[in-house]
Order: sequence, then structure tokens, then C-alpha cells
Amino acid sequence: MKSILRLDIDDARILIAGANAAADEIGVPMCIAIMDEGANLLAFERMEGGKVSSSTIAIDKAFTAAAAKRATHEYGAASQPGAPAYGINSAIGGRLMIVAGGVPVVHEGEVIGAIGISSGTPAQDRAVAEAAIAHWLAR
Amino acid sequence: MKSILRLDIDDARILIAGANAAADEIGVPMCIAIMDEGANLLAFERMEGGKVSSSTIAIDKAFTAAAAKRATHEYGAASQPGAPAYGINSAIGGRLMIVAGGVPVVHEGEVIGAIGISSGTPAQDRAVAEAAIAHWLAR
Amino acid sequence: MKSILRLDIDDARILIAGANAAADEIGVPMCIAIMDEGANLLAFERMEGGKVSSSTIAIDKAFTAAAAKRATHEYGAASQPGAPAYGINSAIGGRLMIVAGGVPVVHEGEVIGAIGISSGTPAQDRAVAEAAIAHWLAR
Amino acid sequence: MKSILRLDIDDARILIAGANAAADEIGVPMCIAIMDEGANLLAFERMEGGKVSSSTIAIDKAFTAAAAKRATHEYGAASQPGAPAYGINSAIGGRLMIVAGGVPVVHEGEVIGAIGISSGTPAQDRAVAEAAIAHWLAR
Repeated sequence: MKSILRLDIDDARILIAGANAAADEIGVPMCIAIMDEGANLLAFERMEGGKVSSSTIAIDKAFTAAAAKRATHEYGAASQPGAPAYGINSAIGGRLMIVAGGVPVVHEGEVIGAIGISSGTPAQDRAVAEAAIAHWLAR
Repeated sequence: MKSILRLDIDDARILIAGANAAADEIGVPMCIAIMDEGANLLAFERMEGGKVSSSTIAIDKAFTAAAAKRATHEYGAASQPGAPAYGINSAIGGRLMIVAGGVPVVHEGEVIGAIGISSGTPAQDRAVAEAAIAHWLAR
Repeated sequence: MKSILRLDIDDARILIAGANAAADEIGVPMCIAIMDEGANLLAFERMEGGKVSSSTIAIDKAFTAAAAKRATHEYGAASQPGAPAYGINSAIGGRLMIVAGGVPVVHEGEVIGAIGISSGTPAQDRAVAEAAIAHWLAR
Repeated sequence: MKSILRLDIDDARILIAGANAAADEIGVPMCIAIMDEGANLLAFERMEGGKVSSSTIAIDKAFTAAAAKRATHEYGAASQPGAPAYGINSAIGGRLMIVAGGVPVVHEGEVIGAIGISSGTPAQDRAVAEAAIAHWLAR
């Protein structure tokens, strides 16, 4: 057996509040997904105006960040045509997201969950994810 | 955050060895799947003669037992025609198994993973799963 | 390593010819699927008038018979409400067929493939599958 | 009928042991999947620290290598934008993997199974797969 740390529902609510605030600030309503360390869904909100298609995308960005223990945008360069991980985006039934907006939540060097954001541009999605984590770190 | 306990790969190997021994004893080669507490696959073996169709079934029995924190046979009565959980067996794309053979692994009252067995009769599958856990408890 | 026997494409053509003849005899055009021992599709025909929905059903009946090494109708009694395998029909994404019409092809006691038939009544499907195997045995 | 050779569970265990050793040597915990010649799962291990997302990816790399009888990295050049197999990576529900790490196991010129590795860089995954096969060849 081993012992691991994991986000709980209170953490998830803080992350969602942080994402809401950051999304409001830039005026882009978002879909927000929180996964725990086992890549299982903890919480989800589609803000008023968030895209329906982005529900699954936010969930899969958070899934990827939690399960692969890396931000989805880090797959970008590695999966371009000609690069080693080219084609990885259709893996796991298409759940492996390489578009920015999925970011792991890290505590003392360990990934304990992740947040996934979708509805804006990939840069906006990533910025909101990172702002949510900053909000959580400052809790 | 919260701290949880989870099966590790050494536990998985002990469980698989226990399942192999129990399957040999009754002369029924089995598919054996071990999930951790997050319902993620840790280890799998299809014994010589185990059924190909049982690979997915063993994995999904272990998934159900880990994710729902109950043995698959416990769904039996509750999901009969007319009973409240009738029809639950096709949930999660058919992954929610209600046939015996998926059993949670419990440590001090907490589910820390699960084992799923398939290829025999449901009663044989369950017996091998329980024997594997007994083998692990006696480690 | 181990050596195994498996249907080849010539066997598959003989089985399909036998199924065509048996289907013509009862006047029910059928979907006919042949799997090899690894539960991989070898050949398929939808006779003129065979049901489109039965394409997948015939394939999944043959899959079940090859992968589980038993005829699909044998699951019937075992999977009725209250019986041990109740609910198994939705396993493997619904591919595990318990309706008659999937029959293993056996050579010297070993399953070397399977045939799946669909479009008629389950009794007709099974009869055509068995007639096809009899035709193959008499080759 | 035809007779074919296929990996058995003992071969699978040797391949997994070889992969474990090679992964330890480079300090990258891996997901390791072994398929038989029929592209059916024989054995799987997620090493301590292997990525959860890589479980499916390792299994699907092994599936691709066994079923297509070629290493997954060989798809790289052929599936680049403008090349003939462009887009093949999303085939079979995304199971067809074109990222390095899936390698067939060959005996006397025949593919008898495959190994799939995931969690490192594609180059690391491939190196561990090849080391595992070398370990098996030296058995």
C-alpha cells in the first residue's frame, strides 16, 4: 500500500471560485472541470454562456492533466507534425487533450489533481486555469 | 486535501499470485484484473486458457468494485426486474458489472482497490477473487 | 509460445456458403459473420434482404462465441433474472450477445473460430449457424 | 485451418520483467502491455509512478503492433500531413497508435504478439519495448 494526497471537494470549490472570478475578469464564460489525483471528476460548472461542446473538452483537459501529470499545452510542441508525439491527440478515444487549458494542481512536488478550462481561446483557457490555481494556493 | 491509501504494484502482484493459485486449484483458468482505489488499472493477467471475452469483463468487474466500493454480486438483488436499480448493468457504457467476481480490497474499513475475476461461473469467479484477497491479507 | 489452430479464409467461405444455402432453404435472408479463434473478423456477408441492424448483431454473436468459447444461446438460462449471470448482456460495451445465433466452430475439442447469424428469429439464426457448421464439417 | 504460434502467459511475464528492468535502468516508471498474436490482452502492469493515462496508451500501442504487425513508430512518416496515411491515428476509435512504443514480437519471421510501453518520451518508450524483447529473446 501507499499513501497519496488528493484534492477534496473543498479544494474543488475554491478552484472553481477562482476560475469563475478569472473568467469574469476577462469577460469569457467558461466550462470548469476539477479532477482528483486518480483522474476522476470531482466538480464541474458551466458558467452562464459557457459552450456546451466545452463541457467534455474541459473535463478531458482536466483528465489529461491529472492522468498524465502535465499541462495539456506541454503536449503542443511535442505533438506537431514531425515531432515524436505526433498523433497522440486521438489517444484514449480522443480524451488526451493537447490544447492549452488543462493544468495539474501540484502540492509539494506531487500532482494531487487538475483543472480543465474550455470555452475561450486556448490562451484564455490556460490563463484562467492558472489563475484558479493561484487562487487556490493563496487560500 | 485528503490523504488516502491505495494498492501498489506489489500488492497487485500478490493478489494476482493468489488468484492464479486459487484458479489452478479449481482447474479454471481465469482473467485477473487489479484496480487501485482510483479505479485505474494496475495489473492484469489472462491465464493460459482464460477467455478473451473475459479480459474486458474482469477489468470492468474490478472497475465496478473499486469505483462503487462494493462487490459486484451485491448489485444482484437490487437490479432485478422491478427492483430500484433495475437496468444499472448497462450504465457507464456497460462497464458497471452486476455479475459476481468483482470484490473490493479493504484495509481498516477503507476500500483501497479491487480485484476482478472472469472466465468461470460467477460463483467460481467470486470464490477466486475472495481467495486472492485472503492470500493478500495473509501476506 | 504455443501453437493453436484457427479458421482460415477458405473455411470462412465454406461456412458462409453453408449459411447462404440454409438461409435460402427457410427463405430468410441473413447477416453472416465469421470470426477466427482470436475473435477477429474473417468474413462477413449481408444477404440480399438481410437487416442492416443485424450486421453488428451477427458480428457480435460470432465475437461472443469465439471469445467466450460457447454458443450464445447457452447464456440464455444463466442470464435470466435471478440467475447468476443476469446482466451479462451489456458487458463489453454490449458486444456480449446472449441471444441465439452465435456458435463456436470446434475441431478436435478446440474452438478454432465461430459463426454468428442474425436477421431471423433467434431459433432460425441458431439453426442456420448450425447448418453452416454441418456443411463445413462435411467439406 | 491453419496453425499459428502465439505468445503465452510465460512469455508475457518474461517480457514484463524485461520492461521493468529497462525502465528502472533509465529511471522512468512505465505502463507495460502484452498482446498475443490475435491482438488480445495477455498481461499488463503499471509500474509505481506510471501514468494513469498511459495504461490505455500502452494497451493500444501493443494492440496496434500486434494487429497491424508493425511497430507504431513506423507509422510516423507515412501519417504526416500530406502523406498517404495522414489521419490514420484516429482510426479504430483512436486505438491505432502512431507514436513510438508499440513493437511486434517476432519468431522466425512471424509476428506472435506485441509489447506496448508508455509513460516516457516516445523514444524512451520504444527503447524499453525493444529492451524487453531483447530480454525475451535471450530467455
